[in-house]
Amino acid sequence: MSIQEVSMTTTFLDELTALLGERGLLRDPDAMARYVSDWAGDRLGMPLAVARPATTAEVAEVVRCCHQHGVGMTPQGGHSGLVAGALPAADGQELVISLERLDRVRDIDPVNFTMTVDAGCILENVKQAAAEHDCDFPLSLGAQGSCQIGGNIATNAGGLNVLRYGMMRELVLGLEVVLPDGRVWEGLDALHKDNRGYDLQQLFLGSEGTLGIVTGAVLKLSPRPTQSRTALLGLPSVQAVIDLYGQARRDCCDLLTAFELIPRRCIELAMEATPELRDPMDDSYPWYVLMEVAATGPIDLGELLEQLLESGMERELVLDGALASSDTQSAQLWQFRESMLEGQRRRGEHLRTDISVPISAIADFVSQASDVVMAASPQCEIIAYGHIGDGNLHFNILPPTTLADADKKAHLHELEERLFEVLDRFKGSISAEHGIGRTKQAPYLARLSPLERELVAGIKTLFDPKGLMNAGRILPTE
Amino acid sequence: MSIQEVSMTTTFLDELTALLGERGLLRDPDAMARYVSDWAGDRLGMPLAVARPATTAEVAEVVRCCHQHGVGMTPQGGHSGLVAGALPAADGQELVISLERLDRVRDIDPVNFTMTVDAGCILENVKQAAAEHDCDFPLSLGAQGSCQIGGNIATNAGGLNVLRYGMMRELVLGLEVVLPDGRVWEGLDALHKDNRGYDLQQLFLGSEGTLGIVTGAVLKLSPRPTQSRTALLGLPSVQAVIDLYGQARRDCCDLLTAFELIPRRCIELAMEATPELRDPMDDSYPWYVLMEVAATGPIDLGELLEQLLESGMERELVLDGALASSDTQSAQLWQFRESMLEGQRRRGEHLRTDISVPISAIADFVSQASDVVMAASPQCEIIAYGHIGDGNLHFNILPPTTLADADKKAHLHELEERLFEVLDRFKGSISAEHGIGRTKQAPYLARLSPLERELVAGIKTLFDPKGLMNAGRILPTE
Repeated sequence: MSIQEVSMTTTFLDELTALLGERGLLRDPDAMARYVSDWAGDRLGMPLAVARPATTAEVAEVVRCCHQHGVGMTPQGGHSGLVAGALPAADGQELVISLERLDRVRDIDPVNFTMTVDAGCILENVKQAAAEHDCDFPLSLGAQGSCQIGGNIATNAGGLNVLRYGMMRELVLGLEVVLPDGRVWEGLDALHKDNRGYDLQQLFLGSEGTLGIVTGAVLKLSPRPTQSRTALLGLPSVQAVIDLYGQARRDCCDLLTAFELIPRRCIELAMEATPELRDPMDDSYPWYVLMEVAATGPIDLGELLEQLLESGMERELVLDGALASSDTQSAQLWQFRESMLEGQRRRGEHLRTDISVPISAIADFVSQASDVVMAASPQCEIIAYGHIGDGNLHFNILPPTTLADADKKAHLHELEERLFEVLDRFKGSISAEHGIGRTKQAPYLARLSPLERELVAGIKTLFDPKGLMNAGRILPTE
Repeated sequence: MSIQEVSMTTTFLDELTALLGERGLLRDPDAMARYVSDWAGDRLGMPLAVARPATTAEVAEVVRCCHQHGVGMTPQGGHSGLVAGALPAADGQELVISLERLDRVRDIDPVNFTMTVDAGCILENVKQAAAEHDCDFPLSLGAQGSCQIGGNIATNAGGLNVLRYGMMRELVLGLEVVLPDGRVWEGLDALHKDNRGYDLQQLFLGSEGTLGIVTGAVLKLSPRPTQSRTALLGLPSVQAVIDLYGQARRDCCDLLTAFELIPRRCIELAMEATPELRDPMDDSYPWYVLMEVAATGPIDLGELLEQLLESGMERELVLDGALASSDTQSAQLWQFRESMLEGQRRRGEHLRTDISVPISAIADFVSQASDVVMAASPQCEIIAYGHIGDGNLHFNILPPTTLADADKKAHLHELEERLFEVLDRFKGSISAEHGIGRTKQAPYLARLSPLERELVAGIKTLFDPKGLMNAGRILPTE
């Protein structure tokens, strides 16, 4: 850094300190440590500083200051992203803007089925606040105890209940956004229907913090379910899972909240990770479905599930099943879904993917992709699970145990490329719910048409002509 | 027109004729007549010509030709828009591009719950094609026998079932769009989940044909309901309607497909228009709710509705009710909803509005708005009905019968301004589902912040730098 640059940086940081106070601006490397890595342990470099504004007005002031001084910004939520989109750049020149102090529930209107929240609210707290008004905010993620609403919006989060309630995009009615020059776009309407011209809010949903910083949102609530039933079923094939899904959508009358595909290997991984888990059925089956139905009123969900199970068995789609008859039993069944993730983590470095194909193509895709991957690496282990109703698979790969640690990354990268080639034949997506960030940028760009790239870059330039806001995510900086 | 202009126009039209053939380009005023007015009878002027391309490639060629010659374009669907957005400009210089010949269902995938259609498909035909595969395309509008999918997309159509299935935005998974320079954006993915960068498709939904011409779409289907039940209930107040709605959302377990507010005056208008309709209950009530539940599986809907009615009566929200016990009876109840529109039409010139407020504010809004309007025009008649679950009211006004026809328009315009001032206090929308087009442009612009206008104009310029595509709709030309 030149003397002139150092002096400019000092001026900039002094301005921020004056604005936010000592508590609002962290410059000490120890204090900044928890802002530089995410859930997966990814880490690129230290930021210039970490700003912790406490209000929308403070966020706007910080952004205006960055805009004026030409300082790059990394908006940051709960560090649970999976594509390194919210990590400060390696060059040490970016200011992290953490939303963690914007954590107020501003308003709950249970009659309108809406709540207005700060972007830094933790998802679990939002769900809890809704529940206190007999409402439900249905977004449901593994990271809900730490992820923030602003991050959910920036990444258009998905999760377990998309099947019934949609992605984050369908759960947001209004937004308040600080644009890259510090101006505030006021779009905090609590209207269920509004067709006034272009729907600007849609652009921010899923833009991964590259077009502005979401500071507030109006969320759409549902009535809180008063009952739910869970079942774990054993099935002979992925095709049987797909066929059962079509039947479940009909027989369960839109009351289906989850329909998760789980391979036998994941049941084993779950039992490894949580030894008190016992094999859920007498026999083992190649594929399992963990499904849940929920209702807010007087419907006999147990009977619905039993009827589905019965006709599924008649059609030889279902081989066996465990129906939870209490909340405890239900929690035990969900324990398999959670422990299998822990089981994977314990295997160390492995390939995590997040892909989607049409539901009707899932069986063929799993078969062809497995053939290609096993041909390329006969000793690897494939673990394909996912949200069937969304066509969303986490087709993950554990590398051969015999492979040296140093070679794993390159080997897995090679397998990912083969996998994505199969995916292209199915017109699938390389990122169904995690986004692009930095991690998925190369395969994203490789598949982006010149026309689409032009439009995406045009939108970025329209909102952020100086290229300061979360630069290098989605599109590279140039 | 100068000689040079005439000669350029001739060259342009000759090129189009060569491209589309005689059948594909109408230049005769008689043949063009049906492309110059819409359902409401609005009409501005004749176009230069009417192009009727039959394929996406032909649409692209026509648009490229317009782009090259600097000719303005009016994309056109089924003429059922309500804001004059698809009518050619008065100056006679625009080319109408009708999508009516792009009317193929390209593909139905009932396992993926999707279908791929040309933009010119009529909504009713799409619904029929879905039904043949035991699926449902749930968008439901009065105009469904004539409106086209492309128009539904361009206007982000709403209608009767938004409560359960969402607006058109939530029913579209992929789009194919001819951009204003003739290039084709290929976004026809049939993926339920896809987070690859900015979601460009969201921009076209609701952009009213100003950013490009939608030529194809992947639509999201639902399982086809196998049963439904309808009820017409009499209630004492709008607040009782709101309270019952909250209870119905819970007690009916997300199976609610419609919940329509109808004032007594509309029941009378319906009976005037359709004399064979008899008063639905022994007594008359100030407000009615027409509601419907539907299910795809074995749930006793009649029991659900009866329970709701019973507890509604206990809470003195519901005063009386008629439950349809057959499809014929159900159709009779829906006849009130349809005939009341016809009854309004027969009253001649009247103010149609399409506004939304938070559901929790509906009762207050109706009360305050009625007071303001009646104070300004004691002899007018207010007819406020709408989709309660969406906070969407058609707060319509019949002018005093004593008023001279020539004075009605100005009088109603004045009342609309008063009404919108009340709406502003409730942070409502002047256009919940109809869009802006030309008709709503003045009140839209009056409420648009400079920042928002800058962003909207920036997006328009990004996609259509020459300003040729449906110019003057949403934003004015300048």
